Amino acid sequence: MTEKDKRTDINELGEFGLIEHLTKPFSTKNRSTLKTVGDDAAVIQNNNFLTVVSTDMLVEGIHFDLAYTPLRYLGYKSVVVNLSDIYAMNAQPKQITVSLALSNRFSVEALEELYKGIQEACELYKVDLVGGDTTSSPRGLYISVTAIGQGEVEKMSYRNGAKVGDLLCITGNVGAAYLGLQILEREKQIFQQTGAQPDFEEQQYLIERQLKPEARKDMIELFAKNKLVPTAMIDVSDGVASEIFHICKQSGVGAYIEESGVPIHPNAQEMAIKFGLDPITCALSGGEDYELLFAINPKDLDKVKYLPDIYIMGEIVAPADGIKLHTKGGQIHPLKAQGWKHF
Amino acid sequence: MTEKDKRTDINELGEFGLIEHLTKPFSTKNRSTLKTVGDDAAVIQNNNFLTVVSTDMLVEGIHFDLAYTPLRYLGYKSVVVNLSDIYAMNAQPKQITVSLALSNRFSVEALEELYKGIQEACELYKVDLVGGDTTSSPRGLYISVTAIGQGEVEKMSYRNGAKVGDLLCITGNVGAAYLGLQILEREKQIFQQTGAQPDFEEQQYLIERQLKPEARKDMIELFAKNKLVPTAMIDVSDGVASEIFHICKQSGVGAYIEESGVPIHPNAQEMAIKFGLDPITCALSGGEDYELLFAINPKDLDKVKYLPDIYIMGEIVAPADGIKLHTKGGQIHPLKAQGWKHF
Repeated sequence: MTEKDKRTDINELGEFGLIEHLTKPFSTKNRSTLKTVGDDAAVIQNNNFLTVVSTDMLVEGIHFDLAYTPLRYLGYKSVVVNLSDIYAMNAQPKQITVSLALSNRFSVEALEELYKGIQEACELYKVDLVGGDTTSSPRGLYISVTAIGQGEVEKMSYRNGAKVGDLLCITGNVGAAYLGLQILEREKQIFQQTGAQPDFEEQQYLIERQLKPEARKDMIELFAKNKLVPTAMIDVSDGVASEIFHICKQSGVGAYIEESGVPIHPNAQEMAIKFGLDPITCALSGGEDYELLFAINPKDLDKVKYLPDIYIMGEIVAPADGIKLHTKGGQIHPLKAQGWKHF
Repeated sequence: MTEKDKRTDINELGEFGLIEHLTKPFSTKNRSTLKTVGDDAAVIQNNNFLTVVSTDMLVEGIHFDLAYTPLRYLGYKSVVVNLSDIYAMNAQPKQITVSLALSNRFSVEALEELYKGIQEACELYKVDLVGGDTTSSPRGLYISVTAIGQGEVEKMSYRNGAKVGDLLCITGNVGAAYLGLQILEREKQIFQQTGAQPDFEEQQYLIERQLKPEARKDMIELFAKNKLVPTAMIDVSDGVASEIFHICKQSGVGAYIEESGVPIHPNAQEMAIKFGLDPITCALSGGEDYELLFAINPKDLDKVKYLPDIYIMGEIVAPADGIKLHTKGGQIHPLKAQGWKHF
């Protein structure tokens, strides 16, 4: 009853292809609906106020492993990843709703831990928990968070505003969260095989980037202070390369990335090599960094140049020039977007 | 790692108790946050515009059974139950987000069916799909919908506005969705035991009330046309009795319900008796009717009296008088709120 004669596997389309395919037949009926599916968040207009809405679902066994994820961190992260989407619109998150489906293996005390993390994120980012739904799950934990923010018409940064000649910038550093995950997975295996307790002391930075990421509220505030409005912006959840493809596709442009411009934390660099991985691949395809990737008009270069923790990693070029990486070795080759595939 | 020494089972608190317990430590930080957890929807103020937000999670094996639920109806229902929460605030839904977690047993064609239903609801209720998230689930289908609406400050109906002397009204009829579910469950068992295909022709009304409910958009429009603003309102998702308790608790009042005032569809009446169930129990505790239960100031009686499909079922009384049912047999006893417990 749930399936028809023809059966197309969802993997054939991939997450973004699937969403595009399924939402294509929908048309917009309300004048207040400014932006729908396809950006970091939806945008709704109420007079001069824009309401910005973003939602993410976190699934046990897919997005997190309770073997090494403290529930408190999980609650924190499930809020932060949504706030990150609102900041990526150059808007301010104000409210969240949290819905949970959970099996009866979770105790009230376990949920208290989860909510402590949710509350810590609410306090730090100054957002209010305004609603949600709590229900039973036959198996596993599912967390669906919706973040609601406020934006101003002239200050919004969408994915589709990048212009040829713009500079491509990134905040912080990338690849660390992915390497944190590799460490956690390795230690889990060692524990399962030998019972040896892991010692994470040395790698705390990488592990925290994975388990307890932060959203770049500070950057949005810095932009406002310096009257900087990125021409396009996206947060790095699926990996830098994948996000560059989103911006290029939606802006109808190409991009030229300098490998030497991609910021990698020394711990990430070192750990990648220990794992026999290429640091730049981890940085470009790792994902879950929740940094901001954005394009600016070159006239704003002076504004950005002296701001802390912002790195110029490339340039927006004509669409015919494609999306290319200029390696430290002097080679130029097409950028590959692996991203995270959850199907 | 997920649990501490003390272990309180979530069943001890129940769904509403659990939410209250977990969200108690949260404080509100934004002036725009008007209403948080505890009503049908959250309310956010942007100047004179109110943004109303509601979210619900539907879980396979808990809220729906794909053995007898066509995916198209499921998509439709998952939207409608959220819109119903917005109407219950006397507001108009405008946008929705839809997040899915699904296992790879679902094909693209199956999802197309689900989205067809979502789209049909969007068309009929004039709401726009503006975002969401689609991800993998190790097992089963999870649907999380958030509805966003617009309200006007002077027209909102919250749960806490009922006053002693107000009349308690209900739209449509109640209990039918519950009996529809009983039929579907019975036929599923018969099919599993004997392979006999069910013939639902006769009971189509009850089954549709379960599988493809509608939200009372028409009533909200009728209220507006007649300049009627309920003093309190809630939609009937968990059962009339449970909803009466919510209104009474939040308004600090009691209620007196006339059994003869509770509207029951003749098909529901008949089917309850066939199942050996008490029709009034089905009507008061069945749930999933998505009708509107509301209180009005007695001066508005004339406005309501001649409106179609609205029934006066009782009166708001002093809190000390409790919440009581006056049966057709002339007895008066305390109302029991069973509601649907999903834990």
